Amino acid sequence: MSRIAVLITDMFQDVEYEKPAKAFGMSGHELTHVGLMAGVVVHGEHGLTVRIDRAVHDLHAIDFDALFIPGGYSPDKLRVDDDAVRFAREFVESGKPVFGICHAAQILITARVLGGRRVTGWKSIVQDIKNAGAEYVDAEVVVDGNLVTSRRPEDIPAFSKAALEMLKGRK
Amino acid sequence: MSRIAVLITDMFQDVEYEKPAKAFGMSGHELTHVGLMAGVVVHGEHGLTVRIDRAVHDLHAIDFDALFIPGGYSPDKLRVDDDAVRFAREFVESGKPVFGICHAAQILITARVLGGRRVTGWKSIVQDIKNAGAEYVDAEVVVDGNLVTSRRPEDIPAFSKAALEMLKGRK
Repeated sequence: MSRIAVLITDMFQDVEYEKPAKAFGMSGHELTHVGLMAGVVVHGEHGLTVRIDRAVHDLHAIDFDALFIPGGYSPDKLRVDDDAVRFAREFVESGKPVFGICHAAQILITARVLGGRRVTGWKSIVQDIKNAGAEYVDAEVVVDGNLVTSRRPEDIPAFSKAALEMLKGRK
Repeated sequence: MSRIAVLITDMFQDVEYEKPAKAFGMSGHELTHVGLMAGVVVHGEHGLTVRIDRAVHDLHAIDFDALFIPGGYSPDKLRVDDDAVRFAREFVESGKPVFGICHAAQILITARVLGGRRVTGWKSIVQDIKNAGAEYVDAEVVVDGNLVTSRRPEDIPAFSKAALEMLKGRK
């Protein structure tokens, strides 16, 4: 069982949160919803709600085994928060698994941890990924060291499978 | 009187469209709302609606005197469209005035026209602007050659004033 932090706020892409979260839970992993304020409810683009368990400013990567960043416009709202960016950076630099889909790489760009990495993401941020010094790969899932990234909702099965395999390999 | 193309789609930031558009109209300039499809109505984040006059795939910078790109998540949705990116690139490269606020620079990043330019934008895209080879300036309005950029709704008065001055200077 791994402790997975889900870094999330308003306007997350509903299924990009819901389906991987369900896959992680069904495999026995424990999810903690980490946001800008504890106790609030955040809303997906299509109405799904998530209760935030812990505020990111209280937390460090050392408190968890892995990080999951759903897509939508949630990453755009999180990357203006210094603690959210610091939290994501700690995971990447510690070598702990980081699972990001769609716009998730935006947070990693602000954290300046993508130089030399192979990653993918939603079409709108392709140039941002390249400009961050990463190699953009147009594939349903890209695994590079501790990073697992995918492009869009259609990629979710491959994304969840690769993430679960990485967690299994680290047990 | 200048012919200004407003490049816009769903989830634009309402006042970042409405207030500059009103200022341009009151000064006698003619606005054409350019989007992904002609005739449709697009919605702001807070409910304002705008009818799209012309589809961007039919248009070129030569058809207008200036370009205005409002913020919000509209630029994220436009930058996945090759014609929207091409249209914005034509303005920057032709030397015609380009007015962009908030997330507007995202389109210019995808168009790869920000290298060596001085620009500003919303906090979330600061690292993207720097990685695109531009100098990020934290000011209410930044004028560099034909580019006028601002950060957020509070900057609108300075933004509109600088844009109108640039149009006056080109008459």
